[in-house]
Amino acid sequence: MSLLVVGSVALDTVETPFGSVKKALGGSAVYISAAASYFTVPIRLVGVVGGDFPKEHIQFMESRQIDLDGLQIIEKGKTFQWGGKYHYDLNVRDTLFTDLNVFKKFDPKIPERFKSSAYVCLGNIDPVLQLQVLNQIKKPRLVVGDTMNYWIDTRLKELTDTMKCMDVIIVNDSEARLLTQEPNLIKAAKKIIKMGPKIIIIKKGEHGAMLVTEETIFSAPAYPLETIFDPTGAGDAFAGGFIGWLARTDDLSANNLKRAIIYGSTLASFCVEKFSVDSLRDLSYLKIHDRFRSFMDLSRFDEN
Amino acid sequence: MSLLVVGSVALDTVETPFGSVKKALGGSAVYISAAASYFTVPIRLVGVVGGDFPKEHIQFMESRQIDLDGLQIIEKGKTFQWGGKYHYDLNVRDTLFTDLNVFKKFDPKIPERFKSSAYVCLGNIDPVLQLQVLNQIKKPRLVVGDTMNYWIDTRLKELTDTMKCMDVIIVNDSEARLLTQEPNLIKAAKKIIKMGPKIIIIKKGEHGAMLVTEETIFSAPAYPLETIFDPTGAGDAFAGGFIGWLARTDDLSANNLKRAIIYGSTLASFCVEKFSVDSLRDLSYLKIHDRFRSFMDLSRFDEN
Repeated sequence: MSLLVVGSVALDTVETPFGSVKKALGGSAVYISAAASYFTVPIRLVGVVGGDFPKEHIQFMESRQIDLDGLQIIEKGKTFQWGGKYHYDLNVRDTLFTDLNVFKKFDPKIPERFKSSAYVCLGNIDPVLQLQVLNQIKKPRLVVGDTMNYWIDTRLKELTDTMKCMDVIIVNDSEARLLTQEPNLIKAAKKIIKMGPKIIIIKKGEHGAMLVTEETIFSAPAYPLETIFDPTGAGDAFAGGFIGWLARTDDLSANNLKRAIIYGSTLASFCVEKFSVDSLRDLSYLKIHDRFRSFMDLSRFDEN
Repeated sequence: MSLLVVGSVALDTVETPFGSVKKALGGSAVYISAAASYFTVPIRLVGVVGGDFPKEHIQFMESRQIDLDGLQIIEKGKTFQWGGKYHYDLNVRDTLFTDLNVFKKFDPKIPERFKSSAYVCLGNIDPVLQLQVLNQIKKPRLVVGDTMNYWIDTRLKELTDTMKCMDVIIVNDSEARLLTQEPNLIKAAKKIIKMGPKIIIIKKGEHGAMLVTEETIFSAPAYPLETIFDPTGAGDAFAGGFIGWLARTDDLSANNLKRAIIYGSTLASFCVEKFSVDSLRDLSYLKIHDRFRSFMDLSRFDEN
């Protein structure tokens, strides 16, 4: 099924204990699309870049069959740039700079032929823009939205309005707590269900992820990586794997949602093994499926 | 199989957002024994109390078929007392007081007929005492040891000596990191394997638990409780459920270790539903098995 992805397209400068990279391809729309591209075509990306955006990045995205008709190129502007540094404990990161550039005035215009997309993934952007996107879409089958603490702190009213139009929200554990003022994650998830989305995914980093619906709670482990090379984009790769699998199968049953969580975790685990989207350049369905099965080995037990 | 449990026996004064309790039955040896008592007999407890220790607590332990021949009663002394307060976010607790009393000079003497116990569980006590216990035991089949940040900080040399005699060590995630100076939990676990114990269990509170051996990594979810009434003793109930299941089945295969982790998680989840050991007073194997199956539902997924 067709999948629309809206979010940032960026050039990231990242330093980790294992190395560094300058102006590498990044941004939520890129990670989501690249991850989802292993499951479904076409993927329709809506975002904005400046005239400085390297052609090779366009070529990479096209090679992944990502439809770039919705990528605005502001020739006189500069692409969004983000710089960050991860420490030895990769759970802690410092943002070194955020130059929004052309992304500051991002006005997501959905090309006419994108408006009937069945699956919609809203990357972590201003909830006002997320809603603006949804107002242009005709009856999507599933809307997945991401957000972050910054929007919860500064745009709570707008975010809660937008959440009413999301079927699935993806947050991390601290965001779930912040959004609901509830320390217990199960209670927090159930409060979020009352705010709109019927499917809550709580990402817990090295502790895996949790799916909560009115009827189901599912706990997914994290893949036990000994070296996390660069955590940038892991959450977006998760979202891409998740919605990519759902768009591929067009099956929203509880059992298939669980599989989608594991495919999301799988893509996130690949993502952090290299800088930027490098590990999402040459995956194969076979590699992905092998790791999916490792997740099974990791969490399976029997009665006797 | 016979199971020897050595640890503290205490009177706990606990305050949580849901209520409070004064001088309630507590201590690592009590929680471990009570949890394990649902799986195996006899359980042999070694600990110390003062003349003030209420008879009803003795009666409770006897009713759970815990053999108290190793419980020293110092008539003129007072029982170890601990006081703590949990806040709304139950991950944070303040210790209000620690009156060691008779526990300060605890000198674990293993009664002759306890010395051939097949399974040994060392609660979180001074590693010097843990080793003193092991030196009195004849060829145990499995030694499980618990420890805490306090011993890692103040008795590292003694702890590493004692760890050489443990088959299984149970630590929480921060203790694993502290012990190895390694933020990545998988790497930390593999470093601990080099220190002696061949089976590492890392408890992660609301995020479940992880089993790491040379060949296996297993990730167990936490039971999704909306109300955690009192977290005191959860780690000890986990240890008790874990070793209790192993002593019952006498099967140290990887598959059975995984089941033991889930039984440990099951007992811990019951433990926190009431104050003190109250929820470990009237469990049944049926209730335990039902919750074991809920853990299965919580983490199981299939390929298609």
